[in-house]
Amino acid sequence: MKSVLVTGATGFVGRPLVAALKGQVEAVHVLARGDADFPGSTVHACDLHDAVGVRALVASLKPSHLIHLAWYAEPGVYWRSPENLAWVAASLNLVRAFAEAGGIRAVAAGTCAEYAWGSERLNEADTPREPATLYGAAKDATFRVLDAYASVAGLSLAWGRLFFLYGPGERAGRLVADATRSILDGKPFESSHGLQRRDFLHVEDVAGALLALCRSEVTGAVNIGSGTAPTVRSILERIASCAGRPDLLRLGARPLAPTEPADIVADSRRLATEVGFVPRHDLDSGVAQTVAWWRSRTAA
Amino acid sequence: MKSVLVTGATGFVGRPLVAALKGQVEAVHVLARGDADFPGSTVHACDLHDAVGVRALVASLKPSHLIHLAWYAEPGVYWRSPENLAWVAASLNLVRAFAEAGGIRAVAAGTCAEYAWGSERLNEADTPREPATLYGAAKDATFRVLDAYASVAGLSLAWGRLFFLYGPGERAGRLVADATRSILDGKPFESSHGLQRRDFLHVEDVAGALLALCRSEVTGAVNIGSGTAPTVRSILERIASCAGRPDLLRLGARPLAPTEPADIVADSRRLATEVGFVPRHDLDSGVAQTVAWWRSRTAA
Repeated sequence: MKSVLVTGATGFVGRPLVAALKGQVEAVHVLARGDADFPGSTVHACDLHDAVGVRALVASLKPSHLIHLAWYAEPGVYWRSPENLAWVAASLNLVRAFAEAGGIRAVAAGTCAEYAWGSERLNEADTPREPATLYGAAKDATFRVLDAYASVAGLSLAWGRLFFLYGPGERAGRLVADATRSILDGKPFESSHGLQRRDFLHVEDVAGALLALCRSEVTGAVNIGSGTAPTVRSILERIASCAGRPDLLRLGARPLAPTEPADIVADSRRLATEVGFVPRHDLDSGVAQTVAWWRSRTAA
Repeated sequence: MKSVLVTGATGFVGRPLVAALKGQVEAVHVLARGDADFPGSTVHACDLHDAVGVRALVASLKPSHLIHLAWYAEPGVYWRSPENLAWVAASLNLVRAFAEAGGIRAVAAGTCAEYAWGSERLNEADTPREPATLYGAAKDATFRVLDAYASVAGLSLAWGRLFFLYGPGERAGRLVADATRSILDGKPFESSHGLQRRDFLHVEDVAGALLALCRSEVTGAVNIGSGTAPTVRSILERIASCAGRPDLLRLGARPLAPTEPADIVADSRRLATEVGFVPRHDLDSGVAQTVAWWRSRTAA
């Protein structure tokens, strides 16, 4: 890779991704709305919703690769937010600008919410794409257009479908961050029964997988998941145990939302065999590292 | 309907649609890029790709209904044009602006190219949506997002999937217009064998169907087609016969493109039974009227 343009660099996945790019590529260009500092990267102030500004900037940078992570992600709100419509538009404009500026390969972040949930293991080729949410529909639609556009424009495009994430730096309002912080603060954490299975991958591995995908020649949709199916209960128990306060976990104190399916688990064979990506963290080491990170922040 | 906002009013379907709206609604607002004159309507100069400008204008007009027809439609080029990406963005922005300004009901134009061609009769509920073109993918994706957005935003939304159109005012580069003008000019018209079946609906009926759809409470996708399956050959023979020069028709002089399927025919039962729309033209009267219109223009 000669030069990579990254969006969403200040986000949960973006930070470890840009860190992993350091020294690996001739030039890393980061688009960010406000001030941001990424050692080893050039930061360009840019609002992705400014279609004209994006086109002008991308035309001047002429990156060979694009990793597009930016999207509206306000916890709890993003599932139904009309901002999803603006992010479809921004994503299409960005990828088009990239291709028209001579870009070779693009990777963008999709979501497991594009699938019809309920299948045992969500597979890129076989599982129907029937998003239950506006967020899922917007991501799915973006991929549909970009996939068709890529074949017309001669662009190599891959779409990494992210599953569940955890790790250092996660924002409040998300499961692992909230549970860890609450328990480290000595406060009880109330959760559902936790018997639902969710595919959690450490955010550094998510970033690594996206980077490996970008370096590969694999096109189309690729699940970015662990392929393992732990229960949410087992994850929360690991967190409470690492934090040394298993007594603070209140499993079953809250109802599971009726929209939550029993299983959301990636078929990760495409990522493993075609992209050749192997995660560095398993759930034990990943949770331990995450709890330690939050503890160091709480102590600071 | 209290006030209707129409886009694409200067287009092939838009002109008869705005004509049909005259006197039927308290206020008709037309968005047009350049100068345009529509008696009985208020024309607003507006570039639909100017997201901010569209939002401001729609917020000031507060229309109760929206009929969105505008899209990139350059014959031959639109199937693969990157402009399709910009029209996805423009459409999402427009419908969101409309809903946020208090709009109640929106109808937008989709296409039979959203379907997997090859089925006997393309049905809204049963035929897979597998567009073979960027144009079809862009329209399909737009509907997917708008449909999900409508349920979140409490907007009533219908998506009229247009099939094949003909009638007065059709632009060059399209089958019926080119055949009619050529034959009226006394020049041979070379076509494929014409054995493929295509669902052609007179443009005034397409406009009438979209208007009926807008007045109805039917939501989701509705095919806008005749439900009949004439061969292209039979249509061309009607044209040549009406023009009095059957000798000028050269069936089989050109190959049929390998991407052209045998049949593209609408299942029009939803339009007929749920919307209650009955076309005014059959193919005989429609072709006769169209040939007469071109003859009057040629004579003028």
